[in-house]
Formats: sequence, C-alpha cells, structure tokens
Amino acid sequence: MIRRGLVIGLAMLAAASIGQVFAQSDPLPSWNDGATKTSIAAFVARVTKDGGPDFVPPAERIAVFDNDGTLWCEQPIYFQLAFGLDSVKAMAATHPEWKQQQPFKAFLAGDKDALAAQGEKGLLTLVAAAHSGMTTDTFAASVADWLGRARHPRFHRPYNDLVYQPMVELLAYLRGNGFKTFIVSGGGVEFMRVWAEKAYGIPPEQMIGSSGVTQFKLGADGRPVLLKLPKVEFIDDGPGKPSGINRFIGRRPILAFGNSDGDHQMLQWTAAGSGARFLGIVHHTDAVREYAYDRQSKIGKLDKAWDEAMQRGWTVVDMAKDWKTVFAFERGGTGASQ
Amino acid sequence: MIRRGLVIGLAMLAAASIGQVFAQSDPLPSWNDGATKTSIAAFVARVTKDGGPDFVPPAERIAVFDNDGTLWCEQPIYFQLAFGLDSVKAMAATHPEWKQQQPFKAFLAGDKDALAAQGEKGLLTLVAAAHSGMTTDTFAASVADWLGRARHPRFHRPYNDLVYQPMVELLAYLRGNGFKTFIVSGGGVEFMRVWAEKAYGIPPEQMIGSSGVTQFKLGADGRPVLLKLPKVEFIDDGPGKPSGINRFIGRRPILAFGNSDGDHQMLQWTAAGSGARFLGIVHHTDAVREYAYDRQSKIGKLDKAWDEAMQRGWTVVDMAKDWKTVFAFERGGTGASQ
Repeated sequence: MIRRGLVIGLAMLAAASIGQVFAQSDPLPSWNDGATKTSIAAFVARVTKDGGPDFVPPAERIAVFDNDGTLWCEQPIYFQLAFGLDSVKAMAATHPEWKQQQPFKAFLAGDKDALAAQGEKGLLTLVAAAHSGMTTDTFAASVADWLGRARHPRFHRPYNDLVYQPMVELLAYLRGNGFKTFIVSGGGVEFMRVWAEKAYGIPPEQMIGSSGVTQFKLGADGRPVLLKLPKVEFIDDGPGKPSGINRFIGRRPILAFGNSDGDHQMLQWTAAGSGARFLGIVHHTDAVREYAYDRQSKIGKLDKAWDEAMQRGWTVVDMAKDWKTVFAFERGGTGASQ
Repeated sequence: MIRRGLVIGLAMLAAASIGQVFAQSDPLPSWNDGATKTSIAAFVARVTKDGGPDFVPPAERIAVFDNDGTLWCEQPIYFQLAFGLDSVKAMAATHPEWKQQQPFKAFLAGDKDALAAQGEKGLLTLVAAAHSGMTTDTFAASVADWLGRARHPRFHRPYNDLVYQPMVELLAYLRGNGFKTFIVSGGGVEFMRVWAEKAYGIPPEQMIGSSGVTQFKLGADGRPVLLKLPKVEFIDDGPGKPSGINRFIGRRPILAFGNSDGDHQMLQWTAAGSGARFLGIVHHTDAVREYAYDRQSKIGKLDKAWDEAMQRGWTVVDMAKDWKTVFAFERGGTGASQ
C-alpha cells in the first residue's frame, strides 16, 4: 500500500505542476496587468463556470467586435477608403461625371479633409459605386492585389499588418473559452472577407458588415456570377449594428467591443440583455505607437459612447497603458502579410 | 509472450466488433436503400477522405438547405402564410384599408387560391406589413404562441411536427462529418428562428431568410428595442438565394438541397464551384403520406430546376420511393412540439 500511495502522490504532484504551468501561460501576453485585463478574465471566468450563477451555455457565448479602430488601425483614413481611392483613380477616366460629384470629387482631388467630412456613409457610397459592373470574384481579387502592393503612409507596411495584437489574442482567448466571435463592422463585408479570416481567425460567415446589392447572372458560358451593383444594400453602422446583429446572428451578444460612437447602439443593445455582460471600448491614447484621438476626431469619433461607458462602468481600454504591444511587428514577429 | 499475444488478439477482436457495430448503425434510418441514399453517402465519403482527390477541409464543408418543402411541409399553404393569416385577422379591425388591398384582401376573405396567386413575394409583403410597429421580441413571442395553438388542417398537429425526418437525419449526418449546415429560405428569418433550431439543430446564426427592415429605438425606460417596420429588406428567393449566400456566408457551398424553382439559382451557384459538389432536389411524389406536386403547383413549383437536374445528373429524391418515414410521428415517436 505504501508503493500505491507513492504512485498516487506522484500523480497528484504531476497534476498540480501541470495546473501551475497552465496558470502561468498567459493567454493575453500583449496586455499589461491591471484592472482592464483583470475585468476581461473575471468576466470569462464568470460566464464559463459550470453551475455558477452567471453561467452561459457555449451556444449563447456570442462576442461581437467592431473592426476599424477596434481590431485594426483606422488612421489617417479608413483603410477601405485608401483602397477605394486607388480603385476610383484607376476608374476615373471612364467616369468624367465624378469630377463634380461628392464623394468622388474629394477622392480624385486627394482632399483628405473633404473625404473625412463625407463620413462613413460617403465612403460606403463610393465603395459601392466604384465597384459596379464587377463580379464578386473580380472584386475579391482586386482587394487581394491591393493589399499586396499598397503600404500604410506612416508604418510603411501592408495595411493588414496593422491589426492589434492584443485584440487578436483576446479573440483567440474567447474562442478557447467556447465563445463564437463575430465582426460587426461599418466596413464592407466583401472587403473584409479577403484578409480578415487569416488576420483574426474569424470565418467569413461570422463577418457582418455593410454591403452593396449583388445581382445573379448567367454568363455567356452558362456559368453564374454575382455582379456588384452601384447600390448600397445595408449600412452596418450606428443604429444599423443592432439591426445587423438581429438579422445575421439572431441572438443577443454577451460581449461587445467597439471604439467609437458608431458602436454606441451595439454596446447599448448588448448591455440591455439579461445576465452577465461585458462592454469594452478601445480608447486611442497612444500617439507614439499608434494614434491618439477621441471626441474631436472626424474618423472614429468617441464621445457619447464614452460618456455612457463612464456612467455605466463599461471597460475603457487605455491603449497606451493597457497594451504592452500594439502591433505584432513591434516585437520583430512576422506580420499578417507574411 | 503468449499471454501478451492473447491480450492483443482480444483487443483487436473487440476493436473489430466495435467497428462492425458502427458500420451497422445507419445514420440515415428513414431513407430506403437505393441510388439516392448511396449517392449521399458516396459524396460524404469523397469529400471527407483525408488525402483523397476530393477532400474538402471542414471549414469549407458548407451545406445549404431550402426550408419550405425541403425540410418541412409547405402545403396546402406556406405555414408562415397560415401564421400571417391569423395575425392579419387579429389586426384587421385597426386596418380598414386592407379590405381593398392585395394581398390583405385575399387573406381577409379566406380566398386560398387568390392567396397562392400572390406568390411568395405577396406572402412576404404581407408578413412584413402585418407585423409593423411590433418589437422583434413581441414578434418572436407571437410566433411561439401561434405554434402552441395552431394545428395543420390535414394532419391536425402543430406545424413544427411536420418536419421531414429523413432531412433531420441528413442534417445531423452532415454535421457529424464536419459540415456546417445552413438554412437558405424564402421564408422570414425571424419566423424560422423561433422553432427551427430545436427542429433541425441549426443555430440562429446559420439561418438565412427574407427579412423586413428593423429600427433601433430607445424606449421610454431607456431600454433599446428593435422595431419591425412595414418594409421588406431582402427577399431570399430565386436569384436572391445566391446573393444571400454571398452576403451571409461568403463562401460557396459544396452541397445544396431544394425542392422548387425558387431554389434553382442556389443549385446553379453551388454547382458552379470547383471540386466535388452535391445537388439535391426533394420531389414531392407521395400523396398518401404527404403531397404530390411539381410542374403545375402554385406553391413549390418544380419545373426548370427539375429539367436542369435531369440534364446534369443532380440527385432527385423521390419522396414515395426514397423515404421510409416522412414524419417522425408516423413511427409513434414524439414530435418536435413535445
């Protein structure tokens, strides 16, 4: 019996050591220790504790994330706008009317302030119009081509290198705890699908975004195509986000993360459900490693949602303080494009 | 060593027996043996054989199913139309204008032929209009209430008992082989979400359907609601199905199942992808156990899609011949409602 006791003792010791190793391996290494990181871990522990008062079954662990400014950078202009600019320039010769028509006029003149003044809706109008007459396959190929060529004006890297490493870790951490992660973005869903699965580990069917109308056609060879029409179908921004969540997911999320007033209604909608909830806002406070902007910004304006966050005790991430790393390339790691 | 050999021999024998048991347990017991059942099993074997020439990674095993007439019965009128009728009748007193206006006029007069003549689009217009001014929560509650009370005129059972048992088995069989199953229906997505998860094992975020516009509002108590407006947003039927698949899934399915010309473009879109494909059509041939209809039917008309199926060798399910059981209640089992 002594021998058996020894074996059991050794086994227990081994199990304890394994437990310790797991506890020591931090699933969020790019987050600094502090109240923000603790609040995330505490929420996940609450909703995943089987038999606990706040337990949520895996099927209902829906987490929604804005994209621009929440999962990747959105300055100095929305990246999709940069893509749109390049595309519109290439197409301008065959559209002389664009010289007198906003938002095309601003684009073609390279007037960034005028562009920003058109807001997200202007961007979407342009993106939809700039790609009319193309099939969905051709559009996807043009986005992939642009990502391979274009470089961010400040970081001189492919745009899809500019995803936030702490958020990539958060997405993986949530999925590791049974959450289903969704993007709910004002950006175009077909634009995101080209690169976002690889960047975030989110499959295309879990990306919700703005969209243009597509038309089914049988080509001359009898092969069907979907033609992108110059008509906005749905704008997944502001009050459109809860509508998009209702339509695409059909379940209320228990966690929502945004960074601007365009995410305000999504945060309100998520917060209004019963049971444990996590509401997060990325506050851009780091002009050195990224950008610093909030109430006065034309892009990613954070004002009313911030007020409500402070009033209700939502978690506001201070990028400068809470993030050890912003972009993976800071650590000499390989970026999304490699 | 003799003893060790004996142990290994017994273990191998046990493993072989277990293998046999699994082989003998038929995942599609409600399907009769024959070419149709064999074609399904052969397709699944091809795309799941790791290292085989037709292997498809699990993330790309997207299977789409029409609902009305493919997963559940659609006669003598679409079940959502039956729900709409009851709702419109209840609301008619406050809408005197409906007496002169189609499709309301036909509904209120109880004129089934006139209703059918309005087609699926008429149904959707009515459903959208009949539920204006309601929140999404109130609407879902009214569907659940109706399902609890209403009975099918022929089978005298709750409508959600009338799901096809062979298709329920097929959905589970596909999921068991790493497929992700989606509904792509002309019916309203919010109508389906109330009952379809329980009936088919498909989560709400994998249901694509027609929808009305919803509007985000903050109630007097500060609690946000989504109000259903009397405006059709998207009709997920015919050429709308490939557009819906593109927008909601963003990947081309490798398997599609429908039953009518409303599924024709979805079948074409699925068929046009590269690699192994399965295209299935449920042909309603069983007037005894269900209904028999095809080219001449006002509901679920199967004409052009059938021609293309025969031309291209798609699988046409002969309900009378291929299905051992149509509804679970035939076997004395409990229906979906119990």
